[in-house]
Amino acid sequence: MKLILASTSQIRQQMLTAAGVPFTAHAARVDEDTIRRALQAEHARPRDIADTLAEMKARKIAERSPEAMVLGCDQVLDIQGDVLAKPETPDEARAQLRRLRGQTHKLWSAAVIYHDAKPVWRFMGEARLTMRPLSDAYLDDYVTRNWDSIRHSVGAYKLEEQGSRLFSAVDGDYFTVLGLPLLPVLGYLGDRGIIPT
Amino acid sequence: MKLILASTSQIRQQMLTAAGVPFTAHAARVDEDTIRRALQAEHARPRDIADTLAEMKARKIAERSPEAMVLGCDQVLDIQGDVLAKPETPDEARAQLRRLRGQTHKLWSAAVIYHDAKPVWRFMGEARLTMRPLSDAYLDDYVTRNWDSIRHSVGAYKLEEQGSRLFSAVDGDYFTVLGLPLLPVLGYLGDRGIIPT
Repeated sequence: MKLILASTSQIRQQMLTAAGVPFTAHAARVDEDTIRRALQAEHARPRDIADTLAEMKARKIAERSPEAMVLGCDQVLDIQGDVLAKPETPDEARAQLRRLRGQTHKLWSAAVIYHDAKPVWRFMGEARLTMRPLSDAYLDDYVTRNWDSIRHSVGAYKLEEQGSRLFSAVDGDYFTVLGLPLLPVLGYLGDRGIIPT
Repeated sequence: MKLILASTSQIRQQMLTAAGVPFTAHAARVDEDTIRRALQAEHARPRDIADTLAEMKARKIAERSPEAMVLGCDQVLDIQGDVLAKPETPDEARAQLRRLRGQTHKLWSAAVIYHDAKPVWRFMGEARLTMRPLSDAYLDDYVTRNWDSIRHSVGAYKLEEQGSRLFSAVDGDYFTVLGLPLLPVLGYLGDRGIIPT
């Protein structure tokens, strides 16, 4: 059976490719920002926002390709119940990092799989990250040096690059930090015979 | 101050480079296999073997460059108190993976820093990995496809490549899984002013 990743995120594609999973990637073209804001206005929990967005992306592709297995994913940053999205400007990136410094926040990475136009499996990965109490000057410099990369990341950091310098502790599966709960996804794909076990 | 990594491991160099740490790498040329076997014969604990080897590598380079800060590292795989090293042949890789399947093992990643020919800091990272109960055929095929890469890894797998398919759970810091407790190392280097904070 064909697997479609309902995302064109580079890092998610890299994770599946490194694991040796055959797939094609299609952009789901869901208006994430509008949906996220609407859910926040309804006081949805951060983990439920991630789950809903992952499901919407999977469903959108599954409607066009019901015969395929479609994997939708989303990641939400949860700081004391508030949600941080991808920063739109360097100033917003600086503000996000100042909000996060000296504290522990959560990353929720949701995966939902559709088949025959129905959701058949879902998983929610959770990781907790503790940021050092860094100075304004350090964070400003980090944003200036890394803007082209961190603009695509919730919370304005990339742990797999210089962002590792921002943290004193990371508790949780690394794949979840990168935006896809890879091991449970691989487990499901193996159980269904999509990849050999 | 100059930082020397007492290792030419590609993955450790990649982790430090990604974090933006300036360093040079030198091979410590310690006879690891002989030392490991001698320590095992003395019933040393796996975590102590990792610590001793990391310290020996750092000391060897520090004797030549006492003015530098020298980082020594070692990783040991601990399965019920037994130690698995890097496999020397594909048959040994298959035997290691059969030993690990269906069980949880530990990876100990030791880091020791020398300065002025003395050990000034040390850290022991711990991760726990649970391997699926895979078939002989699956493991044979994994070894055949990945031998050129996994021959350099204790336990004969690489989580960052197709090895992710072998596991149902990874509990612990990903950098520790890769062989270097990066976040504590970065914390120490920052405290000492080797990298900006």
